[in-house]
Parts: sequence; C-alpha cells; structure tokens
Amino acid sequence: MSLLVIGSLALDTIETPFGKKEYTLGGSATFVSTSASYFTNKLSIVGIVGYDFPLEEIEFLKSRNIDTSGLEISNEHKTFHWHGKYHTDMNNRDSLKTELNAFAHFNPVLSDYHRNSEIVCLGNVDPVIQLKIINQLESPKLVMADTMNFWIEGKPDDVFKMLKKVNIIVVNDSEARLLTNENNLIKAGKAILNLGPKVAIIKKGEHGAVLISKDTIFTVPAFPLEEVFDPTGAGDSFAGGFIGWISKSNNFDANNLKKAVIWGTVMASLSVQGFSLEGIRNINQNIIENRYNNLLQIMDYN
Amino acid sequence: MSLLVIGSLALDTIETPFGKKEYTLGGSATFVSTSASYFTNKLSIVGIVGYDFPLEEIEFLKSRNIDTSGLEISNEHKTFHWHGKYHTDMNNRDSLKTELNAFAHFNPVLSDYHRNSEIVCLGNVDPVIQLKIINQLESPKLVMADTMNFWIEGKPDDVFKMLKKVNIIVVNDSEARLLTNENNLIKAGKAILNLGPKVAIIKKGEHGAVLISKDTIFTVPAFPLEEVFDPTGAGDSFAGGFIGWISKSNNFDANNLKKAVIWGTVMASLSVQGFSLEGIRNINQNIIENRYNNLLQIMDYN
Repeated sequence: MSLLVIGSLALDTIETPFGKKEYTLGGSATFVSTSASYFTNKLSIVGIVGYDFPLEEIEFLKSRNIDTSGLEISNEHKTFHWHGKYHTDMNNRDSLKTELNAFAHFNPVLSDYHRNSEIVCLGNVDPVIQLKIINQLESPKLVMADTMNFWIEGKPDDVFKMLKKVNIIVVNDSEARLLTNENNLIKAGKAILNLGPKVAIIKKGEHGAVLISKDTIFTVPAFPLEEVFDPTGAGDSFAGGFIGWISKSNNFDANNLKKAVIWGTVMASLSVQGFSLEGIRNINQNIIENRYNNLLQIMDYN
Repeated sequence: MSLLVIGSLALDTIETPFGKKEYTLGGSATFVSTSASYFTNKLSIVGIVGYDFPLEEIEFLKSRNIDTSGLEISNEHKTFHWHGKYHTDMNNRDSLKTELNAFAHFNPVLSDYHRNSEIVCLGNVDPVIQLKIINQLESPKLVMADTMNFWIEGKPDDVFKMLKKVNIIVVNDSEARLLTNENNLIKAGKAILNLGPKVAIIKKGEHGAVLISKDTIFTVPAFPLEEVFDPTGAGDSFAGGFIGWISKSNNFDANNLKKAVIWGTVMASLSVQGFSLEGIRNINQNIIENRYNNLLQIMDYN
C-alpha cells in the first residue's frame, strides 16, 4: 500500500560520548522514511528544507526509492537545525540549539497523488499542521501519528483534536504519562484508547516497546546492544520499521501489528548503532532479517 | 529435587500510598520459600527468628509444606524488624528502621539432611554467611544466590569469593551495574559471567527480567499490572518462582531456565498485588497457571 510520511528534515549537530557530527542529515521524516524504505517502495515524503540543504541528500532519498515530489525547498530560509548533546549515560540530552528556519513555514498542500495515500505517518510536528494534513486526505486506510511533550504541554487542545482522527499513536513513556496523567504505563495506554486511537504504541527506549489495543497487550524487549552510539532518531526509525512493515504486508490484523512492532524494534536498534542516520542509511537487507530472527530468539521461550 | 532456602525471616512495617501494615511477616527466606512452595514440597528453610515471632506464622510455613526444622528461635533477641515507606511512584522507598535483632546472630550449622540438598537458594545475607553455608554443602547440583548494594559496597571481596562458588546469581539492574562497573546491562550481565556464575539473571522491576548465559540472552517483560500495592518481596518472589520451577522440573537446560524466568515473573506479579506476603500467601494454583498463560500471550508474536 502507498505510504506517505510527513515531518521534519533537518541538519543536525550531535554530540555523544563517542564523538561529534556537524550538520548531518536528520529530522523525523528523514528517519521514518529511510527506515520504511527497507520495506516498501511505494513511499513518499512531504516536508520542507532550506536553500542550504545538500542536493546529494535529496539524491540519497531518491536512491532509497522515496518519492520526493512533495519536498519543498525554501529560497528564503535555511534548513531546520538542531544541536543536541547527550550526557554520559545516553539517557538524557541537552538541546543546545533549535533553529526552525524553513520549518517554521511548513504548511503543506498535498498533491492529488499524496491526498490519495493509503497509509499516512504523521511525524512529530505541530498538531495544527497534523490536523490540516489529515483534513486533506481522501480516504486513508490508516493514519499513524507521533507527538511530543512540547505539543502536549503547549497545544493540548489541538493534540486531543488530532488524536480523535488517528488510528495509531506512537509515543514514548513520558509522553504517554503526560498525555493521560497516568503514571502506570498500562493505565496510560488504555487511557489513550479513550482519546481516539484504536492502538497505542509506547516506546520505552532500552526497555523496549508495548502495544496496547482494546483486546491486546504485547511487549517487545529492545534488542540487547552492548554499545549505543547515538540514540537520535531511534523512535522515528522504530515508527518507520513499524509502518513500513504494515505497508508492505497490507494487513492490519492484531497479529501483524505485533510483527510490525518487532520490525520497528529491529530498525531502532540498527539506528542507534551509528551516528545520526548512519546506522540505517545503507544496510543490507540480510542484516535486517538476521536481526529480526535474533530478536525472536531472545523473546522465544521454547 | 530437594530445595533449601536460606535467608531472613522478618516482621516488617510497610507503608505505601495504599496503606500501612505493622509487624507483618516478611524477609527474603519467607518470600522465596512461600513462592517456591507452589512448585515443590521438597522444600526446607534455614533461618533465625526471635522470641516474639508469632507461632502461627511458623504454622503457616508448615501448612505450605515447608520443612522448618532448620528454623532457629532465639530466646534472647527479637525478630529482625524492617520499617519501609514507599514514595508515591512506588519506585523509591526509605528505610525508616532496620533492627537486625536475632538476625545479627545468624550463623547456621546445617543438619545432615540440609547439607545434602540438591538445590540451594541463598537469599540476600552477609556474603561471609553465604560462603559458610556453601562450604557445608555436600554435593549440590545447583546453587543460586542473591546479594545487594549494601554487601557489594561493604564487603566486595567476600561477594566476589561467594560469586566464584555459585551457579546462578540473581540481582537487580543497579546491583548488576555496581558489581561490574558497567552501565550497559548486557555488558554487565556478561561481565558477571566472568566472576563465576554460569547464569546471570537481572531483574528490572516494571521492565521485567533478562537472563544472560554464555550462549543465551532471554528477556521477559513484567506482567502488565494497572495497580501495584506493595513492591516489597517482589524480587524474592521472583527467585522463589524461578528456583521452585527448577526444583519441580528437575531440568537445568537453557530452555527450562527460560521457563523458570517466566514462572518467577508470574510470582513477582502476584506478590506486588497484595501487601507484604499477602499477594502470594494463599493463592489458588489455577490463578498462577492462568497468569503464566496470560504472560505467554503478551510475549507471543504469532
């Protein structure tokens, strides 16, 4: 099924205990679409970049069979720039700079082709923009969205309006708690189901992920890694693996959603093994499949 | 196979956001043996209590088919008393009182019957005592031990000596990190294997548990609960379910250790649903088996 990914494209400067990279390709749409591109080639992105965005990075996205016709290039503004520095334990980070630049003017008008997308993944952007995009869609079969603390605290009413219109929400544990005022994650997940989505997926970083729907609770551990080089984009890589698998398999059954959570976990684990996008920028399909099988072994009790 | 459980028996005062209980039955040997008693009746405890220990609690242990012939009753001292108060989020607690009383004089001499135990579970006591017990054993088939930050920091040399003599160590995540100076839990687990044990089991509270051996990494999520009434004894209930299953099944294969981790997780989840020991004091075997099957469903991706 055709998959449309909407979100940010950025040039990130990232510091971790293992090193520093400046103005490297990042952004939610970048991670989601690159990750999903290992599963489907009926894949489009909609986003905005600035006049300084390296053309070879657009070529890179095209090389992943991603349709970039919905990529707006601003003549007036630079590309969204984020500068983050991770603490020694990698679980916390400081945002040293957040320069929205062109992204502050992101207000997409979808082409007819994109309006007719069957599956839509709304990366973490302003919920007002997420709603505008949803309202442009013709008859999507599945809409998945991400959001974050910044929007939940800053525009709660718009976040709640958006939630009413999406089928699947993907958030991390602190976002799930903030969204629902429930400290217990299982309660938080069930409370999210009362806000609109049929499925809540809660990401717990090194502790894996849990999928909660009316009839199902399903947990997946994180893939056990001895080194994490850069957690940036792990959540978006997860979302890309998840939604990429759904697009490829064309199946919304509960059991297939579970498999999608496992594929998402695989892509997140590959992502954190490289700086920024490098962990998933160019991987052999066999590596992905081997890791999937290894993760099943780790979960397997027989 | 015969199972010997050694550790503390206590009268605890516990405060959680849900209430307070005073001088209620607790202690590592109590939780481990009660939990294990749902799996095996070839089960003995060795421990010490004071002159104030309620006789009906000894009768309770006997009613669970636990051999209490190794239970010393001090005429001079009161029973070990711990008073703990949990914070609102239940993840942290303050120890308001720790009165060792009779437990300060715990220095067990095993009977011939207990020396010949096939499986031995050493609860969290002074590593010097743990070593003394190990040295009294004739030819155990499996020795499992627990320890804690207090001993790792206070008597590291003795902890390391003890580790050389045990087959399985069960610790929580912070203890695993402290023991190995490794922040990454997978690295910490592998580093523990270099200290002696063939198997390291790391408990992660609400995030479940991971078993690490030379050839195996196996993770189990915590059973998803919407309410936790009292986390006291969860780790010991886990250890009891784990070692109880091993005793019952008489099987040390990797696959059976995985099943034991699942049974341990089940017992821990039942334990935290009641105050102190109440969660596992008197449960129907069907409830345990149903929860085991429910946990498998939550882990099952097919």
